[in-house]
Amino acid sequence: MAKQRARALGVSLGGLPTGTSNAITDVAGVRVGHETLHTGPAVRTGVTAVLPGPGSAFADKFPAAVAVLNGFGKAAGLSQIAELGVLETPIVLTNTLSVGAAHEGLVRHALAAHDDIGVTTGTVNPLVLECHDGWLNDIRALSVRPEHVTRALAAATGGPVVEGPVGAGTGMVCFGWKGGIGTASRRVGGFLLGALVLTNFGRAPDLTIGGVPVGATLRPPPTGPVPRGAGSCVVVLATDAPADARQLGRLARRATVGLARCGGIMQHGSGEYAVAFSTANRVPHRPAGPTRATTVLAEDGPLLDDLFTAVAEATAEAVVNSLFAGERTVGAHGHVVEPLPVEQVLGLV
Amino acid sequence: MAKQRARALGVSLGGLPTGTSNAITDVAGVRVGHETLHTGPAVRTGVTAVLPGPGSAFADKFPAAVAVLNGFGKAAGLSQIAELGVLETPIVLTNTLSVGAAHEGLVRHALAAHDDIGVTTGTVNPLVLECHDGWLNDIRALSVRPEHVTRALAAATGGPVVEGPVGAGTGMVCFGWKGGIGTASRRVGGFLLGALVLTNFGRAPDLTIGGVPVGATLRPPPTGPVPRGAGSCVVVLATDAPADARQLGRLARRATVGLARCGGIMQHGSGEYAVAFSTANRVPHRPAGPTRATTVLAEDGPLLDDLFTAVAEATAEAVVNSLFAGERTVGAHGHVVEPLPVEQVLGLV
Amino acid sequence: MAKQRARALGVSLGGLPTGTSNAITDVAGVRVGHETLHTGPAVRTGVTAVLPGPGSAFADKFPAAVAVLNGFGKAAGLSQIAELGVLETPIVLTNTLSVGAAHEGLVRHALAAHDDIGVTTGTVNPLVLECHDGWLNDIRALSVRPEHVTRALAAATGGPVVEGPVGAGTGMVCFGWKGGIGTASRRVGGFLLGALVLTNFGRAPDLTIGGVPVGATLRPPPTGPVPRGAGSCVVVLATDAPADARQLGRLARRATVGLARCGGIMQHGSGEYAVAFSTANRVPHRPAGPTRATTVLAEDGPLLDDLFTAVAEATAEAVVNSLFAGERTVGAHGHVVEPLPVEQVLGLV
Amino acid sequence: MAKQRARALGVSLGGLPTGTSNAITDVAGVRVGHETLHTGPAVRTGVTAVLPGPGSAFADKFPAAVAVLNGFGKAAGLSQIAELGVLETPIVLTNTLSVGAAHEGLVRHALAAHDDIGVTTGTVNPLVLECHDGWLNDIRALSVRPEHVTRALAAATGGPVVEGPVGAGTGMVCFGWKGGIGTASRRVGGFLLGALVLTNFGRAPDLTIGGVPVGATLRPPPTGPVPRGAGSCVVVLATDAPADARQLGRLARRATVGLARCGGIMQHGSGEYAVAFSTANRVPHRPAGPTRATTVLAEDGPLLDDLFTAVAEATAEAVVNSLFAGERTVGAHGHVVEPLPVEQVLGLV
Repeated sequence: MAKQRARALGVSLGGLPTGTSNAITDVAGVRVGHETLHTGPAVRTGVTAVLPGPGSAFADKFPAAVAVLNGFGKAAGLSQIAELGVLETPIVLTNTLSVGAAHEGLVRHALAAHDDIGVTTGTVNPLVLECHDGWLNDIRALSVRPEHVTRALAAATGGPVVEGPVGAGTGMVCFGWKGGIGTASRRVGGFLLGALVLTNFGRAPDLTIGGVPVGATLRPPPTGPVPRGAGSCVVVLATDAPADARQLGRLARRATVGLARCGGIMQHGSGEYAVAFSTANRVPHRPAGPTRATTVLAEDGPLLDDLFTAVAEATAEAVVNSLFAGERTVGAHGHVVEPLPVEQVLGLV
Repeated sequence: MAKQRARALGVSLGGLPTGTSNAITDVAGVRVGHETLHTGPAVRTGVTAVLPGPGSAFADKFPAAVAVLNGFGKAAGLSQIAELGVLETPIVLTNTLSVGAAHEGLVRHALAAHDDIGVTTGTVNPLVLECHDGWLNDIRALSVRPEHVTRALAAATGGPVVEGPVGAGTGMVCFGWKGGIGTASRRVGGFLLGALVLTNFGRAPDLTIGGVPVGATLRPPPTGPVPRGAGSCVVVLATDAPADARQLGRLARRATVGLARCGGIMQHGSGEYAVAFSTANRVPHRPAGPTRATTVLAEDGPLLDDLFTAVAEATAEAVVNSLFAGERTVGAHGHVVEPLPVEQVLGLV
Repeated sequence: MAKQRARALGVSLGGLPTGTSNAITDVAGVRVGHETLHTGPAVRTGVTAVLPGPGSAFADKFPAAVAVLNGFGKAAGLSQIAELGVLETPIVLTNTLSVGAAHEGLVRHALAAHDDIGVTTGTVNPLVLECHDGWLNDIRALSVRPEHVTRALAAATGGPVVEGPVGAGTGMVCFGWKGGIGTASRRVGGFLLGALVLTNFGRAPDLTIGGVPVGATLRPPPTGPVPRGAGSCVVVLATDAPADARQLGRLARRATVGLARCGGIMQHGSGEYAVAFSTANRVPHRPAGPTRATTVLAEDGPLLDDLFTAVAEATAEAVVNSLFAGERTVGAHGHVVEPLPVEQVLGLV
Repeated sequence: MAKQRARALGVSLGGLPTGTSNAITDVAGVRVGHETLHTGPAVRTGVTAVLPGPGSAFADKFPAAVAVLNGFGKAAGLSQIAELGVLETPIVLTNTLSVGAAHEGLVRHALAAHDDIGVTTGTVNPLVLECHDGWLNDIRALSVRPEHVTRALAAATGGPVVEGPVGAGTGMVCFGWKGGIGTASRRVGGFLLGALVLTNFGRAPDLTIGGVPVGATLRPPPTGPVPRGAGSCVVVLATDAPADARQLGRLARRATVGLARCGGIMQHGSGEYAVAFSTANRVPHRPAGPTRATTVLAEDGPLLDDLFTAVAEATAEAVVNSLFAGERTVGAHGHVVEPLPVEQVLGLV
């Protein structure tokens, strides 16, 4: 039977309305693609790509910011986004030891589209984020290669996003249960805010859904790496609201509220990173003049606060969606991780 | 009838054991003093001082760090703590427009104790944090003067901490109800972690206690500044664990988890700052030699994660304690703020 | 005989053209005012105010950023500028222990102009920066009071800026010689960039002017606090170029290049802070709608690099101007500080 | 005729004494290895590895910090160093588009040495820094492969370091002349401080050596990418002084003084990153207990200031050494870059 999403099953995760697909792709132009590597007994990994909008992100960049909530992670591409406030490639998520391969994949993708890069213009800043899927995946095999990025990019579509153990989420574990990819969206003041998460964090007893601390109650307890539970989490936020880079940083920092609502405490080993971008006010690589007209959000007024709430809600719902989409996964080292027992959960929340 | 604290009333806010007084003063040497200004129809403000330990904080400084969770605030003294990793005065909390007076109060306190400051040695870095109590207090009157800091320092004691509308908390509002000072503590691996909060944040419908979203249910709804609800929150964390400044920064950043557990979303207008200090490994103002022996926490292992959990739990419980200690307050502008209806809450959680 | 500025004496400090007054006030609307406290044998201090533009900075804020180059200092107001990207008061410079009094002075100034602050709107974020003038000033006397801020603000004018031992510069020492206030400006691509500095930093042997390491050569050596030489430096940068807050942060961080050109090495004890604001694209306190049209600099292209060069040149020339305007000052503790021996310097550069 | 280093030719770059080899390898245990890719008409690139000390950096980590001076760059591995304060791999420098390959090379190196990584312990955080060598190198060819990292690591030795167009420096351009690898060291209070730079920054007219602005005078002018000159610069700092991570951050931030002394202005396009590590107080991956004894530098006293001066001097001398070691290089796109005309320079300084 097809998995159902939390909202369809009546789980309430905040009061703001969702977009059409309740997905990051509700933000016009955003596309998501997965390349899943689930082969043999031990390869449980992959690549998930988020394309921020139509056309080249390099030619017309996206205002963006990154929030390092807990910097115990290996993301690449952060400092340039902090300095220049723009995203100039798709965002790629993968496993921790494959950051290099994913980086090269994004470089190759940019080179293929732009024959001036590295010759008559500068280079390109790939954004790669990761979680450690070594509980289920033979992460030492470095199975992800640059071409898997190419395939994930080619597979990207708008509309509903496949969630759960797909793409970068194939081998992830969240609160002891099968984690992976989740997404959600919110409508605020005529704008859309979408979140996509890669969930690999949390201790089993801490899991909280819709305010209910279900984690300590579920039986049998999960089979993921319970004792320490440390993993990581990546949160990608997209909006069509004309937030500038500073404001996107404010949005990104609120992702931690969504994770805390699910029971996260930013454990030592849980690298947690949020990146936020806007599809409004793209920034041309080759400026037409010394200054450029743009728009920004008013800082004061209800809109920004509602966007903050939207970040908290969408992030939390995306985490829950990643769990509701879980599937029993047998992987490396003889490890087995079960999906969240959704029926039990529904009896509690 | 005397107010009771949340824990005494059976409200569960986490699983770690508390210290003796369930207060920041459980960390040996930490003292708290209040100077309450509740006079006439409109003065509802004050000063709360946290003394980090015995002896002079200037002569023997405390490893410390500050986390700016939402920088919409007017705290003074942050950049030096970030640069040098030490606290060298007591921590003073007051209202937003009185940061200057409180700063001068701390300067005078340091000058009185050290006749070398500004002559044969350098100056001193007062740490002042604040929230905006203008809903209940005639904040424009600048009622807090430097001598009120002196009095709060002189009043400081160990043991149980008076909570609620006292000291800097006199005029604060939290989730629409009367906020103010709250405190709590946790024991972890032979160490103590204490939190003291000044609560002035949160939208009424968001209030969550022990995982239960009580805010939308309580009747009648609160009379605080509901529509936007933006205030601020200060979190002071003390520990006797030998965390160095970097590690204390990690602790301080987890305060946001505790606030989120209470329903906080770091609203635009809610400046949220956490400062953490350690009473271990004090740093002499006049070093005995070019290097100094010290100890630090192991980064890996369960202790740091448990301290993170302690921060989340103690911060959340301190917030709830500040609400449980609330009292009906009639203040400036004809505003009245009611205390949290504790009995109603107890029926919900 | 009137002191002459470095440029009038033929000292070359970079190739970009200056504005009319070679001062921060060349940026239209910027005004500077001093209140000098030079009384009795030991009071050698004061206040310098930089008004960023006409009208109220609170009602119509200025895009702004702060760079903490060496955070060993006591500036107040930084975190809100970092979070919100705007300046909403004049900038006040004074001595280290008078930050509190100056803060209150700015609060009173804002309250006098805006009867809604603290009642129907929020509070206000005063920006106060400081250096330690305790070598020449009885800094423990806390001679600066809030009303001195009022007077400095009232005294503010456009046009040429009085440099040297005036206002906040009255008691400062720079590379062992009399320091204080200096200013300079540059024209870049139709825009103006001005710097104003409060100089209290540098070891005597390190002084470099126009690339020439004059510090080790001057005889007799200076009488300032040679052995450690640590003081601090404040750099205020103004521009009418439409830089947004992030870009202003990039400008501010280049102030360190100007200080290094003068021989600065950001000594341990030398708190060094740069604040940059733009007079373009003021940000209304009460936004007219949820979004706002604005302009920003193109990040790429020669303009930004030229502004970076302008920051380096104007900062360095402002430092040198502060020294060329020095006067022999007898102050507290029997200390005497001589002005830079300009004729000797002119023979070297 | 063999190239001579600046100091051997009488160029004075500061007053502190050097270590034995005037190289980063003067810090006991530090080794440097190059893998140079100079093949065909267009491949002018490579890898330079800095091994921080004997044994495994993963098993016994090095206290470390990174300073992002201008974040327009693509370094990988920064956020974990900022969070945890340790370096756990060698430091690899290469070209901008090869960060991915170098990352994978470091991953493979760590996996080969530690069969527990990714299985019974966590993953590993490779530190890769880069400059854009596309003026001389066909950077689009992605010539650097993971095995080149292996070779650079295998080639690493102590003692004198080969400078100039070797390893990662093969295709770099600095102030219009041939740049590349340079190194220098200083002795301070019984400790050593070494710098290694990868120089690819600066506009030709700005070049300054020993305080003399030689750049505008040299004839013929250089043939590097003069008009904008933007490149980047990496500074690696090593010390055996027991600085903790926070203090190493303070050291790293002073690298900018050394670059400014050479005429750098942190141009828009010049990503500038400094990493500093200490060989004292290594941090075990598997802690022996919940706390650990260690030592730190006294913050006050002359030692830290002298280390700051050492950073400025060693960084500047390393940059000059990279130029003095330059060789005429014909590369991609028909570009030719000449070495700095050392004899002309010697006539000027």
